[in-house]
Parts: sequence; C-alpha cells; structure tokens
Amino acid sequence: MYSVNPLTGDKYLIPTHLDDKNKINSFISSHSDKKVVVVQGLGFVGAVMSLVCANSISENYAVIGVDIANEDNYWKIESINSGLFPIIASDPKIDKFFKKSVKKKNFLATYDSYAYSKADYIIVDINLDVQKKSDFNGNLISYDVDLNPFKNAIRAIGKNCKEDCLILVETTVPPGTCKKVVKPTIENCLFERSLSTKDFKLGHSYERVMPGPDYIDSIQNFYRVYSGIDKKSADSTEAFLKTIVSTKKYPLTRLGNTNATELAKVLENSYRAMNIAFATEWSRFAEESEVNLYEVVDAIRMRPTHSNLMYPGIGVGGYCLTKDPLLASWAKQQHFGSKEALIQSERGVTINDKMPLFAFEHMKKTFDLIDLNGRKITFLGVSYRSNVADTRYSPVERFYNFCLKDKAKISLHDPYVSFWEELNLDINQDLMSTLNNDIEILIISTAHDEYKNSERFIQRLINKESMMIYDTVGSFSENEIKKLSKKHNIKVLGRGDLK
Amino acid sequence: MYSVNPLTGDKYLIPTHLDDKNKINSFISSHSDKKVVVVQGLGFVGAVMSLVCANSISENYAVIGVDIANEDNYWKIESINSGLFPIIASDPKIDKFFKKSVKKKNFLATYDSYAYSKADYIIVDINLDVQKKSDFNGNLISYDVDLNPFKNAIRAIGKNCKEDCLILVETTVPPGTCKKVVKPTIENCLFERSLSTKDFKLGHSYERVMPGPDYIDSIQNFYRVYSGIDKKSADSTEAFLKTIVSTKKYPLTRLGNTNATELAKVLENSYRAMNIAFATEWSRFAEESEVNLYEVVDAIRMRPTHSNLMYPGIGVGGYCLTKDPLLASWAKQQHFGSKEALIQSERGVTINDKMPLFAFEHMKKTFDLIDLNGRKITFLGVSYRSNVADTRYSPVERFYNFCLKDKAKISLHDPYVSFWEELNLDINQDLMSTLNNDIEILIISTAHDEYKNSERFIQRLINKESMMIYDTVGSFSENEIKKLSKKHNIKVLGRGDLK
Repeated sequence: MYSVNPLTGDKYLIPTHLDDKNKINSFISSHSDKKVVVVQGLGFVGAVMSLVCANSISENYAVIGVDIANEDNYWKIESINSGLFPIIASDPKIDKFFKKSVKKKNFLATYDSYAYSKADYIIVDINLDVQKKSDFNGNLISYDVDLNPFKNAIRAIGKNCKEDCLILVETTVPPGTCKKVVKPTIENCLFERSLSTKDFKLGHSYERVMPGPDYIDSIQNFYRVYSGIDKKSADSTEAFLKTIVSTKKYPLTRLGNTNATELAKVLENSYRAMNIAFATEWSRFAEESEVNLYEVVDAIRMRPTHSNLMYPGIGVGGYCLTKDPLLASWAKQQHFGSKEALIQSERGVTINDKMPLFAFEHMKKTFDLIDLNGRKITFLGVSYRSNVADTRYSPVERFYNFCLKDKAKISLHDPYVSFWEELNLDINQDLMSTLNNDIEILIISTAHDEYKNSERFIQRLINKESMMIYDTVGSFSENEIKKLSKKHNIKVLGRGDLK
Repeated sequence: MYSVNPLTGDKYLIPTHLDDKNKINSFISSHSDKKVVVVQGLGFVGAVMSLVCANSISENYAVIGVDIANEDNYWKIESINSGLFPIIASDPKIDKFFKKSVKKKNFLATYDSYAYSKADYIIVDINLDVQKKSDFNGNLISYDVDLNPFKNAIRAIGKNCKEDCLILVETTVPPGTCKKVVKPTIENCLFERSLSTKDFKLGHSYERVMPGPDYIDSIQNFYRVYSGIDKKSADSTEAFLKTIVSTKKYPLTRLGNTNATELAKVLENSYRAMNIAFATEWSRFAEESEVNLYEVVDAIRMRPTHSNLMYPGIGVGGYCLTKDPLLASWAKQQHFGSKEALIQSERGVTINDKMPLFAFEHMKKTFDLIDLNGRKITFLGVSYRSNVADTRYSPVERFYNFCLKDKAKISLHDPYVSFWEELNLDINQDLMSTLNNDIEILIISTAHDEYKNSERFIQRLINKESMMIYDTVGSFSENEIKKLSKKHNIKVLGRGDLK
C-alpha cells in the first residue's frame, strides 16, 4: 500500500509495523531542554498549528505532528520530515515559518501514538464529521454524527499521555463533547493505566483558521476564546495560548465552561451560514425587481451594524459552514436531550445546499435554455472560496454535475487548483489558454481576483465570438457589463435587468 | 371633537372648516427669499426631519409640517405653533434645534394641503402600515398591505404641488411603490390640472431615524442611500440631501433605481429581524446546556465579521422590524408577480412575534410556577428598546397580557414612560418607590441603563424579602447574580444554570 504526495508525485510505502519510537526518542533527547507540544492531526488546521507552535512568540517548543499511516495521510508525514510542507498557500509566512522550523529541527512528524507520552501539551486538531445524506439536487435527506472516530483518537491520547499533561481540543465538536466524551474517555484510560485521574488538564479553544493569504495570522494574530473543564485547566490553557497568540493586540476571552466555547464556535458558523441563506432569498427578489443586489449590499454595509451582510452567490462550500449548524442541532438533541432541533440553523444549511440548483435554474431561465445537450461550457473557478486552493464541498461541484447530467461539454479553469480531487479532474491553470476554447457559455463560478478589474481579461472576452456569460459572483463592474453586453449576452446572479 | 396634547393635557377643538391659507400665505411672504420645504407627516420621523430642514447645514429653508386634523394628530400642529415640540427625547439637540426654529420663525405646522402649492421640496414622511392579524399568543394568522391611505396622501400632494417640485419619499414602502404607485398618481393629478407631467422630480431616500439620544444625528450625521425615477430626479435628490446631511463625513450612495433603495430599506430591517430570530433559537439551546449566551455573544462580537450578533431577549418591538419583512414579501408577490414569498424573512417576523410567549413559558418552567393567579409581579421597563420612550408594538405588552390572563397582580415601572398609550395604563417612573411594593416576581423587561451597574439598585433588591427575579435582558453581571442569588431565586433568559 502506497500513499502519494500530490505535490511531487512521490510514492511512499505505508509502514505496517507502526513503530517510530527511535526517531521520537532521538528527537526528544536533542530537545531535552524544551517543552514538548504534540499536535494530533496534520490537516488544514493541525499542520499550520504545528508551524505556529514551532515558531512560538515566547517559548522554544519541540513540536511533533501526528497523523495516521494510511493512503490519505502518510505522505504528509514523509513530506514534512523531508523538508516539504504539505500545504501550498498564498501566505508567504507559511514558507518562512516552515524553513525556520527545518533549520531549528524542532518539528517532527510521525504516525506513532508513542509521541503523546512525551507531550506537555497535546493539541487536538482532527476532524469530526457530519454524515450528510443528500440527493443529486442538494436536498438534505438525513444526517447523523458518528462520534466513534473522534473517541478513538482521544483514546489514543489517553493510552499514552502523561497524567499531568494539558489536552487542548481545537476541533469543532458538538457542544457538550469535552465534558461528556473527552473527559470521561481520558479518565478511563488513565484509570486503566493506574495513574491519577485528577491531574490532567483539559481545555477547549476553537480555531478560526482561514486558509489563504492570512493563514498564519488567522492563528497567531486573531481573537481567541477558550475554556477549561476546571480552573486549573482554564489557567493552563490560557498560559499556553499566550505563547502562540499575540494576546496584547488580540486579548483572549475566557468563557464559563467548555460547553460555552463549543457552542460559540458552532454559533459563529451557523450565523454565517444563515446570513448567506438570507442573501439567497433576496437575490431572487432582486432578479425579479430590476435591482442590482451587489450595489444594495455595498450601500447597506456602510452601516456598522450591517457591515457583514453577504453578497449573493452560487452556494456555500468548505468544511465548516456546510456542517457546523447540524453539529449544533445534533448536540442539542443528543447531548442535552432537547426535543427541538435548531430549526433555523439547520434550514440555513439546507437552503445553502440548494443554492447551486437555484443558480443553475436561473441560468437556464435567464438565457432561455431548454437543455444544455452538447453546449460548450467553461467554468472559471472551482474552489469554494475566492483566492484559495480549497475544493472541499465546493458548490461548483454540484453546478458542474448539473451541467454534466444535461450532457454539456465542460472545460475548467482555476488559478489555484491544478487537480480537482473530489471529481478526479485536471484543471487548466492558464486563463488565456482557457479562453482560446470554443465557448458558448462562460460561467464565472468563483470570485478569484484574476477575473476582476482586468483590462486584458475583458478585452479577450470582447474579442471572442458572441457567447452567454453568467456571472455568479458579481465579478464585473457595471461599466464592464456595459462593454461586454454590446457583444455578449451577460447575466449576473442577484441582479435584475436594470430599466 | 377634540385632540388632546398628552404632554400638557391641553384640549384643542379640531377645526371642521379646513382652511389655513391665510396663515400659510403670511408665513411664505415673510420668507419670500427662501426655498420652501413641506414635510408630510409629523410623527417620529417627520417632526424631527422638519427640525433638521429648518436647521439645514447650508441653506435657509422655510419649513411647513403637514399633518391631519384629527383626534390623534391635530394637537401636534397646535403644539408646534405654540412653541412646544410634540416629541420628548433624550437628545438635547432636539430642544436646541426647535428653539432655533422658533427664534427664526421658519417652522410652521398646518393641516391644510394648500401648503404643498408653496413647496420647492416635499418630503413624504407618513406611515405605510401592514395589517397583521395575530392570535393572543402571537401567532401570525394573516397579513395584508392596504396602499389606499398612502395613495390618498400622495394624491393630496399631486392635487396641489407645483409642476416642477421635488417629491422625496422617505417612507418605508413595498419595493416598486415609487415607480408603480407614486409616479402614476402624481402624473394623473398633474394631467387633470392641465400641467406638464414631465417636470416634477421624484426621489426615494429612506430614513434611518433612531429615536433616543442620537435622534438628530441619525438624520444629519449618518449614511444615506438615495435614488430617483430618472437622472434629473436623482440629481435633485442628491442636491437637496447635501443641504441636510453631513455628506463629507457620511458620503451619499446613489443606487440604480427607486426599486433598489426601497428594497435596500426592507432588506436592512429584515436582516436585523432575522438575526434576532436566530438569537432566540440559540438562547433556548444556551438555557439547556449550562451556557451563558451573553458572554458567548460578547466573545464572538470581537470578530469584525460577527460584530452585530444580537443578544437574546423578550421579543422585538417598534414600528419597523415587526412589519418591514412582510412589506417586502408582499411587494415581491403583488408588485412583481412572484409566486414565492420571502419565506425566511417572513419567518423572522413570526419567530420574533412568538418570543414573548417563549420568555413567559421559560419563566414559568424555570421557577416551577403552575399558574400566576394572584402573584404580585413587577415589570421594570415597558418600552420596546432600552433608554427610549417608545412603546409601539413593545413585546412587553404581550408578556404583560399573558400575566394578566393568568390573573397576576401587576405593577409597572419605566423611567421614560409615564403613560402606556396602547394599554391605557399609568406607569410609575420612580424606581425606588416601585421597589417598595410587595413583589413576588420581579421581571427586568427592558434593558434600560437605570437597571444596570447600580449599587443602590442591587442593595435595594438584597434588602427586600426573598423573591423570584427574571432577567430577560442580561441586565445583571455575573457578580451581581451571585450576590442576588444568596437571597433571591434569580433566572436569566438565555443563560443556563452554570455548573
């Protein structure tokens, strides 16, 4: 069994005898003067959290990142240990921080849970997924939360950790999980190992990591909320966070208990998801009433109380907003025995999941298209958010599938994505060569900067044969729309035909 | 028939012969060098808008305020003309501005539509109401919008106005109304009067008036969005707004058409109503899960993108948030023929209308009260918002009625309200004497500053016999709750019992 590094193509044989003790012992002994931080999970959060710890603002930590030796993850371990960071990001600090840690030799990656036995601080950065069952159109049929993978990961910590370590959970969990799941799991493990169950510390401080140009700053220079299962846990969490977050500029906030921080995280994301769902409804209305919703949103955003009103769009993607409201609603019922779901918050998710279908139907209606059979369609942008290389749960995926089902001929461009993992597709990364295609329908599907305010791009479009242009993200200015509409049939999602 | 001034008790005989021409002519001739602004409607918006025009930042206007000679409104006309402003507000600028206009003698009030014939600018500040039919519990049964009173008011303008005046609508209207209702109404009237229908200007610029300490500034020093039915209307509206708004600090925003500004206003308020509805759902969850939602909201608000997250509360009141989402949804269907309502926005209203019932039931459940028969209840605060004297659609009204139906014995306090118009009740305005009552249940029902951070208030409560305290607005700090709970049984809406 192999694990392939998508950045280099290198293939690594996955070890079957899971023993990395020698490497860990040697790493620890060469850092015997330092406190040891072990980060569980080397994904979008854990990998970068490791870097931030290895470049602490006030401490010299020895950092070990742990992930699983399987096809999806083993390559990350090999990549880190061979001097190549496993995530490509537009933030130059990532490269700088990783180079520093390579130089200091204070960042090791491993698959061996033995690492936890050396830790003073254990940071939990693994995923906790929601199992969503949806139909082809995006209708949510059912959902569930399986806590077992998360519990097993916590057990791996409990079976190895020192009895007085700090376990800091950063994972977005159903509210109640630290008290009802993590704490008893660790206590049971320590009890079985005949260790004290009174001395470990357990904190929760959710991450607000934002992949993209401010990746590192979204950890090091941003507000943090934290809590502990008891006072000593909260104190210990606070002391640790002060070594990685610039707390003078971004003061920490302590909440009353771990339920509160867990709830705060899912509330934040539910709020954002619901605001997007709200924009969806109003973009329909704007289309009907000769209104340009983008200029309306810009005008309203000048009010400080309304500054975070959302633009319309093709849908919601990414790992968080598509599931966190469901995590919350699940916890309300399963952890706290409530008979009522979080109806509005769940509805935020279900409305957003339908956005690609709305956008697709609006496109067909507004261009008077009966079907797309054989139509040559080009998508500009496949990632779920502007200016990042992240296609997880991208709404473009669903839109793409609708076009595919209609037997359209599709080509794809994205400046940040060369390979679309979820669909197993190669992506053209060169805009001008993409525009050399024969195009009947051009869809601006992600609000990447490359499609904005570019004289060259506009000129290239004007020079092409007449086509339908569907701007789903408000990429073009009114002036550009005027220019383009002399040649092309251009429609904008959330903008009625102005009269 | 009389109209009574609630501020003085003075009774005025309502004129039956509606002729005020002499007074208007004399006012105009003594201001023959000035442009004339006529404001239609002398309510919470129009009365203060008149003051702002009479104290223009760059022009000397002669201002006439028009209202109807009926029981509810005639006293305002007499009050203004006799030197007493009809609205009491905590904003000292109100008094200052009114005194100045009295001194300059540039503000007249009248009931005679003849005033419009003298106007260069006519500002429409009348109400446009939604007819909501709800049951006792707050369930919305149906709603409708009757445009006829609004149309009649516009007709009064059209029958009198100069053919080249600017009509500036500030009223919150169903999107589409300026184009589909106001414009043809004015054109018809001018046509019937054998005047040109091409020269009048029609603009829309919604007000964001906020009664309270910043009453004047919410007009003079705040962002404005505007539009016109054509370019000359938009230009004329812009020129006029620049004479009353500090546009250097608060630049104006012009939108593409009047539909857009009309939509922007109801979108703003729907957004706010929906955010409050969202907080309601999460306050239930917080109560169930040992979480203090107030501290969670404070923590999340530190994020610039989440700074307008709302606190939990007893409900939503006031004139705007309780109806604007319905206005919008009505317009979508009636003005633009859509088959779909604005479902989420409507739901915001229906959820908020149920908040008093939720709060009432939560109170009974959390204090284990079977019924309130004969219980001595004191409400602190009856207005719908903190630190203002505005009881329109106050959620306290519904809460009060639930207690009344349960045969509780109720007393009321509000530092800003001496008489509760909607319920025809006198209100005690002195807190300490209110607290001399025998009290079994004390409800903090409005977040007035008088109930916050007051050592004297807390001490007075501690000195009283043991009682139930129900804080529906997060008035008390954690520390105060600790102190109070030694003596009293205190519960806070949106805050679970912390363990």
